[in-house]
Amino acid sequence: MTTNAAVGPGITAEGAATLPAEARQRYREGLEIPSTGEAPGYTQANLVVLPKEWAFDMLLFGQRNPQAVPLLDVTEPGAVSTVLAPDADLRTDLPRYRVWRDGVLVDEPADVVDLWSDDLVSFLIGCSFSFESALLEAGVPVRNIEQRRNVSMYRTNVSCRPAGRLSGPLVVSMRPVPAAQVVTAVQVTARMPEVHGAPVHVGAPEALGIADLAHPDFGDPVDVRPGDVPMFWACGVTPQAALMASRPPFAITHAPGFMFVTDVPDEVYRKP
Amino acid sequence: MTTNAAVGPGITAEGAATLPAEARQRYREGLEIPSTGEAPGYTQANLVVLPKEWAFDMLLFGQRNPQAVPLLDVTEPGAVSTVLAPDADLRTDLPRYRVWRDGVLVDEPADVVDLWSDDLVSFLIGCSFSFESALLEAGVPVRNIEQRRNVSMYRTNVSCRPAGRLSGPLVVSMRPVPAAQVVTAVQVTARMPEVHGAPVHVGAPEALGIADLAHPDFGDPVDVRPGDVPMFWACGVTPQAALMASRPPFAITHAPGFMFVTDVPDEVYRKP
Repeated sequence: MTTNAAVGPGITAEGAATLPAEARQRYREGLEIPSTGEAPGYTQANLVVLPKEWAFDMLLFGQRNPQAVPLLDVTEPGAVSTVLAPDADLRTDLPRYRVWRDGVLVDEPADVVDLWSDDLVSFLIGCSFSFESALLEAGVPVRNIEQRRNVSMYRTNVSCRPAGRLSGPLVVSMRPVPAAQVVTAVQVTARMPEVHGAPVHVGAPEALGIADLAHPDFGDPVDVRPGDVPMFWACGVTPQAALMASRPPFAITHAPGFMFVTDVPDEVYRKP
Repeated sequence: MTTNAAVGPGITAEGAATLPAEARQRYREGLEIPSTGEAPGYTQANLVVLPKEWAFDMLLFGQRNPQAVPLLDVTEPGAVSTVLAPDADLRTDLPRYRVWRDGVLVDEPADVVDLWSDDLVSFLIGCSFSFESALLEAGVPVRNIEQRRNVSMYRTNVSCRPAGRLSGPLVVSMRPVPAAQVVTAVQVTARMPEVHGAPVHVGAPEALGIADLAHPDFGDPVDVRPGDVPMFWACGVTPQAALMASRPPFAITHAPGFMFVTDVPDEVYRKP
C-alpha cells in the first residue's frame, strides 16, 4: 500500500479518483486532511457518538429534526462498523475526530480507539457534500467550491424541536445562488431529503437572526456576488450545537470537514 | 355534545363529514368502531406504546425499517399528547386498544388510562389509509374498499433489519391493481414515503413466501379480479409482529383498524 497524501485528496498518484476504501485506509494509517473531494460520487457522513444512556435522546432529536439531522445509520451499542461501509472501522477511519466532555471540546485526535467502549452508539448523519455535486451537475454554481473555502455556517434564532435533554439552535449552511437559478437549486436539493433536502430559507438572512453573512459562526466567509441570493440549508453541525448546549458527559464527533467516507453512491440518496 | 354513533363513522347526523376532534371525542366517550372512513382527508396513525427501557430499540427499529415503520411522531416518556393532534389524549382517544404482556395479547380495552405510567413512550406510525385516498383520486380502484373488507395482510419470509432486542418478519398489505394501472399505483404511493411509500414487491406472492393469497395472516381475504396484479406494501402491523416475536414485558397498541385520527391533512404527506 502506498499513501498518496502528497498528491491531494481524491486523486491517487496515478491520477485516478480514489475509491472509498482507499480513502479510509489512508486515514486509518494516520493521514489527517479534510475529506472534501475525496472518493467523488460517494456519500460522506457526519458522525456523532454518544453513551447508550443518551442515545434515545439523540435518536429522537434526529427523528424530530430530520432536515438538520438526517440519520443514514445508527449502530448497536459498542459496534464499530456500519451498513454504510461494512469493512470500515468507525474508531479509526475518519481523518480527524473531536472529543467532547460536558459539552466542551477537549481533544481532536486522529483516532478514538482508546476512548471506545461497549456503551457507545454511533449516529451517521447525511452531509451536504452530496447535494453540492447534484447542484453542479444541474449547472448551479457552488460558490464555496469555486472560492476553495469551507461553506459558511450560522447559528439561527430558530430552535430545533427538543428531544429529552437535547435542545439547541438550528444551524444552517449558506450558499449564494444566482437569482435565476434559485428554483433549480430548490428542486435539485428537494429530491435529496436524506442529505438535508430542500433549503429551509431563501434570502433575508436577518429573518433567521443572522446579522452579517461575512461573519459565519462555523466555516469560512464565502463571497456573495452581485445578483446572488443567499440560500440556507439545515446543516449537520446542528447536532454538535445541541451537544454544546445540552452537555452530555461524553461525546465523539467528526472534526468539521473531516467526514466519514461511505461506500454508498450519492445517487442512492437522489429521489426520482 | 351529541353522539352520532348510529349514523356511522365519518358522517354526522347532519350528513357532513366529521372533523378529527369530533371523531376522537366520540371514541373518548366510549364508541368502539373501526376508524375506516372517519374524518376523511385526515391522516390516521398506528400506535405502539412501550416502556422507556425498550423505546430506544423501537425507535431504532423504525429508523432501520422506515417503509414498514414510518415514524410520524415519538413522544417524551409519560406524555399523553402528540404534535399530530395537540388536544388529543393518547390514553382515551382511540376507539380500541390492545394490551400485550411478554408478547402475548391479553386485553382489548376501550381506553388505557389505568395502565398508563410516566415511563411509557408512544410511537405514532404512518398508515396506508392515507395512500388509499390518493390511489382513488388517481383513478386506481382499491378492491378492499370496493369489497368493504379490511385489507389483506401477510407475514413474509423477509426479515426486518433487527434493532437491539427487536426483530421480526416484514408484514405486507396486498392490494390487487389492474395491470394497466400498476405503474400509476407505484408513482402515486412513492410520493408518500411517510405512509409506507412505494410497494416493496409487485406480483409473484410466492417470492415473499406467501402460499395462498386467499388466506391472509391478518385482515380479510380480498378477491383478485382477472387482470389484477397483487401489489405488496410494507404494513404498519410489522411492529406488532416484532412485539409478538421479541416479547417486551409490556406494550400497548391500537387494535387493527381502530386507528388514531390525527389533525394532519393527508396532503401534508404527499410529496410534489
